[in-house]
Amino acid sequence: MHATETRKDRGPRNGVDTPTLFATLEAIKGQPDLAKFQFRVSNRWVKGTNSRSRMESFTGAGGQQEHKRAYEYDADHPTVLVGGDEGPTPVEFLLHGLAACITAGIANVAAARGVTLSEVTSRIEGDIDLLGLLGLSKEVRNGYERIRATFDIKGDAPAEKLREIVAQSQARSAVFDVLTNGVPVEIAVNAA
Amino acid sequence: MHATETRKDRGPRNGVDTPTLFATLEAIKGQPDLAKFQFRVSNRWVKGTNSRSRMESFTGAGGQQEHKRAYEYDADHPTVLVGGDEGPTPVEFLLHGLAACITAGIANVAAARGVTLSEVTSRIEGDIDLLGLLGLSKEVRNGYERIRATFDIKGDAPAEKLREIVAQSQARSAVFDVLTNGVPVEIAVNAA
Repeated sequence: MHATETRKDRGPRNGVDTPTLFATLEAIKGQPDLAKFQFRVSNRWVKGTNSRSRMESFTGAGGQQEHKRAYEYDADHPTVLVGGDEGPTPVEFLLHGLAACITAGIANVAAARGVTLSEVTSRIEGDIDLLGLLGLSKEVRNGYERIRATFDIKGDAPAEKLREIVAQSQARSAVFDVLTNGVPVEIAVNAA
Repeated sequence: MHATETRKDRGPRNGVDTPTLFATLEAIKGQPDLAKFQFRVSNRWVKGTNSRSRMESFTGAGGQQEHKRAYEYDADHPTVLVGGDEGPTPVEFLLHGLAACITAGIANVAAARGVTLSEVTSRIEGDIDLLGLLGLSKEVRNGYERIRATFDIKGDAPAEKLREIVAQSQARSAVFDVLTNGVPVEIAVNAA
């Protein structure tokens, strides 16, 4: 950043390094293959309904990338469903992904539009009738019947502009797209 | 458990308390409202593209339930996308949910079928072209284009029976259903 550029004009906002973000977009425009990413998780069964996933590396921006550190997360079924409750349920992680995706987008979009945010919180709820996945009803689906998200956003812009920022983040959200539109999932099995 | 019942016949297997699992299914058959669950996540923006979700309680089995402890997870964008990499990306948590959901089902189904598992591992990959979510192409979707999962399963049953256990878990998986079929998501915004 040049010394003549003020933080207000061009600098980072909301913790988003806006100039680098714009420069990254320009670089990808010129070389669209940089935008091809593959994310990966490896998982190992621990005991009962408890398993542990690891996120360590991914591919994108032209090569293999490493997270700053390897992340490991447990998931489990709750005790009321005869699990060990050694972590949240798998379906709760979908809600976490949705909240985090739209929130990250809000911060980026707000920074790009020159809006300083003071607070973004959200509550995500998913309704699921377990009669489906327990095999007790053929009329009930296995997964969530519906998901509701409520975002509270505060910043130095009129309410209408803040709403537009959330709407734009939703319109570009990877997780919102996957959850609402679905995605082809192939499953292969090696058994021994 | 009666003293005359052997562990092999009726007892827990794979860390799954099979008798209690069957008793729970019977209880729900008699009172289907017990199967209505609501899972919840609250999220707070931290800085930049980093936010933190909390899973603490949920509703189901006729009332409010608390996890053994509150779980908190960060998500972020990676540094190559101008994030802080303070956690995995939101889309990686979808892969974790898928791996964990099918793995938990495998353990339950195997226990119900009298199969003792020795190892279940999986690798999940999601391909995503960021030209969509970055707004650089209208032909590219925002989310994953496809997801591939590979499960390796070992246990005291023929390979064919082990494959059937994975297939049955997939057929009843909440996360597999949501990811492949999609779910309605409503988003509300309070702006100030």
